[in-house]
Amino acid sequence: MKISFKNDYSEGCHPRILEALTKTNLNYQNGYGLDDYCAEAAKIIQEKIEKQNSKVFFVSGGTQANLIVISALLRPHESVVSANSGHIFTNEAGAIEATGHKVHAVETANGKLKPIDIQNVLDVHKNVPHQVKQKLVYISNSTEIGTIYTKNELENLSKFCKENNLYLFMDGARLGQALMAETNDLSLKDVAELTDAFYLGGTKNGALIGEAIVINNPDLQVDFGFHIKQKGAMLAKGRLLGIQFLELLKDDLYFDLAKKANQHAMKLKAAFRAKGIQFLADTFTNQLFPILNNQQIEFLAKDFDFYVWKKIDENHSAIRLITSWATEDAAVEKCAEKIGELF
Amino acid sequence: MKISFKNDYSEGCHPRILEALTKTNLNYQNGYGLDDYCAEAAKIIQEKIEKQNSKVFFVSGGTQANLIVISALLRPHESVVSANSGHIFTNEAGAIEATGHKVHAVETANGKLKPIDIQNVLDVHKNVPHQVKQKLVYISNSTEIGTIYTKNELENLSKFCKENNLYLFMDGARLGQALMAETNDLSLKDVAELTDAFYLGGTKNGALIGEAIVINNPDLQVDFGFHIKQKGAMLAKGRLLGIQFLELLKDDLYFDLAKKANQHAMKLKAAFRAKGIQFLADTFTNQLFPILNNQQIEFLAKDFDFYVWKKIDENHSAIRLITSWATEDAAVEKCAEKIGELF
Amino acid sequence: MKISFKNDYSEGCHPRILEALTKTNLNYQNGYGLDDYCAEAAKIIQEKIEKQNSKVFFVSGGTQANLIVISALLRPHESVVSANSGHIFTNEAGAIEATGHKVHAVETANGKLKPIDIQNVLDVHKNVPHQVKQKLVYISNSTEIGTIYTKNELENLSKFCKENNLYLFMDGARLGQALMAETNDLSLKDVAELTDAFYLGGTKNGALIGEAIVINNPDLQVDFGFHIKQKGAMLAKGRLLGIQFLELLKDDLYFDLAKKANQHAMKLKAAFRAKGIQFLADTFTNQLFPILNNQQIEFLAKDFDFYVWKKIDENHSAIRLITSWATEDAAVEKCAEKIGELF
Amino acid sequence: MKISFKNDYSEGCHPRILEALTKTNLNYQNGYGLDDYCAEAAKIIQEKIEKQNSKVFFVSGGTQANLIVISALLRPHESVVSANSGHIFTNEAGAIEATGHKVHAVETANGKLKPIDIQNVLDVHKNVPHQVKQKLVYISNSTEIGTIYTKNELENLSKFCKENNLYLFMDGARLGQALMAETNDLSLKDVAELTDAFYLGGTKNGALIGEAIVINNPDLQVDFGFHIKQKGAMLAKGRLLGIQFLELLKDDLYFDLAKKANQHAMKLKAAFRAKGIQFLADTFTNQLFPILNNQQIEFLAKDFDFYVWKKIDENHSAIRLITSWATEDAAVEKCAEKIGELF
Repeated sequence: MKISFKNDYSEGCHPRILEALTKTNLNYQNGYGLDDYCAEAAKIIQEKIEKQNSKVFFVSGGTQANLIVISALLRPHESVVSANSGHIFTNEAGAIEATGHKVHAVETANGKLKPIDIQNVLDVHKNVPHQVKQKLVYISNSTEIGTIYTKNELENLSKFCKENNLYLFMDGARLGQALMAETNDLSLKDVAELTDAFYLGGTKNGALIGEAIVINNPDLQVDFGFHIKQKGAMLAKGRLLGIQFLELLKDDLYFDLAKKANQHAMKLKAAFRAKGIQFLADTFTNQLFPILNNQQIEFLAKDFDFYVWKKIDENHSAIRLITSWATEDAAVEKCAEKIGELF
Repeated sequence: MKISFKNDYSEGCHPRILEALTKTNLNYQNGYGLDDYCAEAAKIIQEKIEKQNSKVFFVSGGTQANLIVISALLRPHESVVSANSGHIFTNEAGAIEATGHKVHAVETANGKLKPIDIQNVLDVHKNVPHQVKQKLVYISNSTEIGTIYTKNELENLSKFCKENNLYLFMDGARLGQALMAETNDLSLKDVAELTDAFYLGGTKNGALIGEAIVINNPDLQVDFGFHIKQKGAMLAKGRLLGIQFLELLKDDLYFDLAKKANQHAMKLKAAFRAKGIQFLADTFTNQLFPILNNQQIEFLAKDFDFYVWKKIDENHSAIRLITSWATEDAAVEKCAEKIGELF
Repeated sequence: MKISFKNDYSEGCHPRILEALTKTNLNYQNGYGLDDYCAEAAKIIQEKIEKQNSKVFFVSGGTQANLIVISALLRPHESVVSANSGHIFTNEAGAIEATGHKVHAVETANGKLKPIDIQNVLDVHKNVPHQVKQKLVYISNSTEIGTIYTKNELENLSKFCKENNLYLFMDGARLGQALMAETNDLSLKDVAELTDAFYLGGTKNGALIGEAIVINNPDLQVDFGFHIKQKGAMLAKGRLLGIQFLELLKDDLYFDLAKKANQHAMKLKAAFRAKGIQFLADTFTNQLFPILNNQQIEFLAKDFDFYVWKKIDENHSAIRLITSWATEDAAVEKCAEKIGELF
Repeated sequence: MKISFKNDYSEGCHPRILEALTKTNLNYQNGYGLDDYCAEAAKIIQEKIEKQNSKVFFVSGGTQANLIVISALLRPHESVVSANSGHIFTNEAGAIEATGHKVHAVETANGKLKPIDIQNVLDVHKNVPHQVKQKLVYISNSTEIGTIYTKNELENLSKFCKENNLYLFMDGARLGQALMAETNDLSLKDVAELTDAFYLGGTKNGALIGEAIVINNPDLQVDFGFHIKQKGAMLAKGRLLGIQFLELLKDDLYFDLAKKANQHAMKLKAAFRAKGIQFLADTFTNQLFPILNNQQIEFLAKDFDFYVWKKIDENHSAIRLITSWATEDAAVEKCAEKIGELF
């Protein structure tokens, strides 16, 4: 079998999570998220972000988190602004629209939204009430193409949103990887300070399932549980989510795993760079998008699984390589070696 | 701490499931339900129901299963008929209506729908197109009050639905317990034969999470995966669901656990009967609804946790006791003993 | 052709409306409700209710008004309480549910909701967040069976709603008829004072189309126009609605027409009473529900069109007779005469 | 007051319509579209399109027609492809998304969709079931920028849609104007032949309100009335729609009015051309988009009302001039004269 760099959810979970699930398995707990583990995990998150007033809610996956947060925050006539590479725009089977809300997609160079991008959308939607009303800005960090927001960029976005009465929501399916990138200058506390809501992704960073939604804006916390229930996302055995996040966050396992994923990617990046190969975007997280010629792609495809992401010209395409905490060192080494053999 | 008979989802999962998750943990698998375990579990279900053409889909929980199936099967102007004790009517935070569909609730004596109940709804909705159009009948087996459908009853319902162009959908959150009841004469194969769709509940019968939706009507299978994705129910690590159902179904663990839950309840039932105590409904599954006077309730509440389900008169209420595969023999014995002390 | 008492929308409109449409036909006006006529008609309504801060919006019909108001006022997890005879529950093809909201139907003796009815719904929905949250009370005045609310009844409802954080919304498709009933003690001003929103029906009282939605609660006025547009209810030539309401309201034509409709009905009522005939409900508006035996029904059906409303027993049913401003005196006289011949 | 070329819905209706409404005003008719006038108008449309099996439904306005047709035709996971100038994408307050469906917007040179545009959308949505499924193509004729489809273009689109299992739906808010353009080679019969559904706009061509939806694909006709009712679009006095379309279509009034509107525009177009002025798109219907410099715009704005449509550069913008059947000859002449004075 080939070694796979196709995604970061092909294995189960970090072994410590299975141990924690096993150890607590027969403890009697309240259902529906009212168990001790969820409470404890929420408390740790509140401490890490230094916001006792933020509320934490655990759900199973990213699309679920996105559709619940967005539909809970918006009234029927309100819409979302997203990068056109945004997960909600491209890969969620119309989930946001299915809750009744339009997603405005903005072309970006690198998956990141800037105030001017949002302003451009606002500018062509001034014909009240004939046009939909923009109310929420959706960003991902790291983005769908592996880039990250700097602190300054996020501050600017946050300021712009406040000035324009827009909510700022960060999809953090790979937030761990973003925060552990070597070029990152954002803290988890900054994220909580600068957004109305965000989530901390577990599925792609060591958990079996699970995303921790954090609502920072107190107005938006009201009745939030109803939305989780109504969308079918409230697990009877909510402990499954609480135990996992508790295990990931009680020490720094969550961040260690993200760091390891990034380091794997950086090794491959160095190997590509050594061959003078260019990238679609300069990424420092666990996703790489090197631009190869067709023979090079064919050569790597003999030993490795990956997606061909974007055709550049007849003879070149960007491929996507993803690493994770579960990627083995030997796999990275073998891949780096093969990259070294590219011609 | 008191012994709890409040519900059947207060513990984790059957230990064999954790073992299976651990053993397979680092196996590389495709995401989003395309893993080997889901495929194998689906195949076992097809074999058990003797219908190779039924399609199996795994989701996380009951409300999720209900809202996905119902919204996938109906067009916007179509509605659902349910018992007024139906989970979708009482306890899902308006999840079905949130997908756009009305739920007609029918009063029933014992949680079970009869053809006449549905006919009564049809009869008062003949003013086309001013009134909503009934298209799906929702039943639970076992029902929310622990009763079960006989084969004859299900055949009659199925026939009625076919004659009236209605889909028949069975919520099987506790289908294992229904099929293992000592009075049951339905087989899993019968269920598949007589319904358009049903699901086999894992959460309340040994799994951490998971319901196996089975679509028998081929017309209704088309594009079903889109609905799972769109509602945020498609787990990246779908293996979590597949592994659990594989473990529960590869031998008869699923049915053994349900049987054990029922047996616990039958022991308590016998204890109540021995004291001449009546029940709200005569149940043979893992839910009991004995009618007690207030002093009796107070007496039991000293040692046990349970819900007071329904007030009967000033001095009497029905309580609900639920047992599960995880209920300990000693707990049942102690409870039976205390029931014996009722005065 | 038989004389029809089937409904109050079988003719066009009051001739004065056609005259007004003709006179203003080629005046240049802004579209989408921003014309002078809408502004003037809104101002007259504000004056009549003595609330300069209420906002008035014109739409085409009753179902449209109901679905726009309800979906604009509620968040996704919130529901509506209605009498089970409520138009939104029985005759709007699931329009409210199609916007995502559950309608709780309460059995009533006479089509009118009382605080205790609502309290009963609240009492069985305390399991937060597993059950839908009640947020709006929908009443009709006159009701679907012709009865009306007294001032005291509406005050009690209003007080109960405020105490329980519920919005109170009155469907006024036949509000004119209610306010002109000889037993009425409510004023239009009272209605505006005691409800969060209501509408004044034009379609069933002299207009071709048109209902005037009045939002009294300032919090609920925000962005309301977006909802009208989004539901396809904002007419390009909004003048059509403005001109009609202006003509109906600039003097008391609206109320005169309602009074005339009621008087017609009261003549028929007297004729039934003279024969000792009972009614389903004692109504003083333009709807009558006399209980007749089958031969009597057959006798009247020879000359008149009407609906058989409700079977009482094998030999008796209540029929529904509706009069309107357009009903001719001669028709009423002939009907009264035939009623006199009942045996 | 300035002469307005802002839109084609600033006056009431053609006088013959008011005469017809007046003449029929007190005729007793069934409600909800079951009146004789609707039936007769529908029959005339069936005859004009030579398709006895097409079904005709009358609603009030364009956004309403669009949202009803689209939501009735699609299942929850299906989406719409539109030009990015499409009315549903830009100017309907998110109405389509509010019914749950994503609208894919395609950049076009002239407001018209080509098969390749749709193919491009299909090409990037092959990741089943993670991406929404395209099922309906929405086009406008004339388009929002006044251009029209040739017969050959519509045949190509129709063929492409059939080959790709896509429905083709034409927004005909200004279909009369399209069919009466001097460059048009499409007949109403062609439109019915080549689309699954379309509508014939009344509001912008002589009626007070009203669009005639024509469903050609028999599969899509089933239960269509329910959707009209559920969206609040079924008028109690449906006669208002029937009478208008009957009057417009019983002879060729509908087409004469459209022709007149076009002729007005062509006179202005000739005046611009005489001055060597270029247009955003070369249109032959009642919308013109001349590109003027700022001084020219200022000059015309002294006497005429119009929208500045699109900024071209610092010193130039395209303006939009719209004419209608109600535009007076003198207004056109005066405007042509002033155009002649442009420098």
